[in-house]
Amino acid sequence: MRRKLGHGAFLTIEGPEGSGKSTQVPHIVRWLKSHGYRVRSIREPGCTFLGEKIRETLLSSKHKNITTHAELFLFLAARAQLVEEVILPALKRGEVVVCDRYMDSTVVYQGIAGGLGRDFVERLCAWGAHGLRPDVSFFLDLPYREGLKRSGRKDRMERKSFIFHARVAEGYRKLASGHSRRVVVINAKSDVGSVWRNIEEELKQLFK
Amino acid sequence: MRRKLGHGAFLTIEGPEGSGKSTQVPHIVRWLKSHGYRVRSIREPGCTFLGEKIRETLLSSKHKNITTHAELFLFLAARAQLVEEVILPALKRGEVVVCDRYMDSTVVYQGIAGGLGRDFVERLCAWGAHGLRPDVSFFLDLPYREGLKRSGRKDRMERKSFIFHARVAEGYRKLASGHSRRVVVINAKSDVGSVWRNIEEELKQLFK
Repeated sequence: MRRKLGHGAFLTIEGPEGSGKSTQVPHIVRWLKSHGYRVRSIREPGCTFLGEKIRETLLSSKHKNITTHAELFLFLAARAQLVEEVILPALKRGEVVVCDRYMDSTVVYQGIAGGLGRDFVERLCAWGAHGLRPDVSFFLDLPYREGLKRSGRKDRMERKSFIFHARVAEGYRKLASGHSRRVVVINAKSDVGSVWRNIEEELKQLFK
Repeated sequence: MRRKLGHGAFLTIEGPEGSGKSTQVPHIVRWLKSHGYRVRSIREPGCTFLGEKIRETLLSSKHKNITTHAELFLFLAARAQLVEEVILPALKRGEVVVCDRYMDSTVVYQGIAGGLGRDFVERLCAWGAHGLRPDVSFFLDLPYREGLKRSGRKDRMERKSFIFHARVAEGYRKLASGHSRRVVVINAKSDVGSVWRNIEEELKQLFK
């Protein structure tokens, strides 16, 4: 049984490349607003001056050889800044925060797929984010080949090997089963409308 | 008794602002070269494409409000990249690496003075640097008021409060006493020439 959410709730949306996160976020925001919530919609990494600098660095093709350790620390830096500067103050004001990617991405991409270790990265993420975990996380589940086909982008993160992306998809599934009270798995194979209707059903349960 | 050093040794130079690190490094490099060593001289953060970006960000006055957590992770990211891309390959080729600031700076500035915790930051630094610790570290010891007076710079790191800089000086002393086999404390109050002669004496002992 999930706990009921209201003002000051913290939602994240997660999933592999091309799973439709940024398509679904505006629907979620609109639904929350139409139900009387003030909403802060953000994406990771970014949404602070420092975070946008880091986003630029991480996605730039000039930085081909960033090591996995360095990548981990850059995501953690962007998040630490975001949590203190944006998320915690917004939650305190009673806003509902919707975040496109958060610590589960780091655990999956750098911890599991990148080989730095799930448990260690999970603990480090929690420390780096002042212990702030989402109240609920929507995982958009999609076979990785499908996701890569859908996403037309060719930046540094997306040019990683197929094996890496397969590990990401598998990593999300593992993580979901370990956090079943917090994580809602959404089948993202169907069309945008059906995916949204599934998310909407969950929102109705969570915020009623 | 310190162990003897030779090709492939890793030296760091540490100390508060204005303690004369960047003045002494060229002397150390010249001495090593004149004794037949190939030397790689670097400074932190920096010396990789990613590291220089991070240096720019950390020292820029535009980033007034970087949180202590984010700052820690940025230093760790720059170092992780530097260790993998530059230091480990250089040591493997038998070069002597001389680094202006390294993990002790992070432990002192963010761990001790910044309040993130000495032990935790020390463990995280070791992990993030693939366990690579210096063979010897010269700590230039100087009362913090003296250091701030000497250093004319006015960047973000140097505009922190006096209390912070006092904690840094004290932090270096604590760290030195905890790592007495690795750390050589050099009194940096006297003139440049005398400080260098003290370092030179130590180098003669270490590399004879």
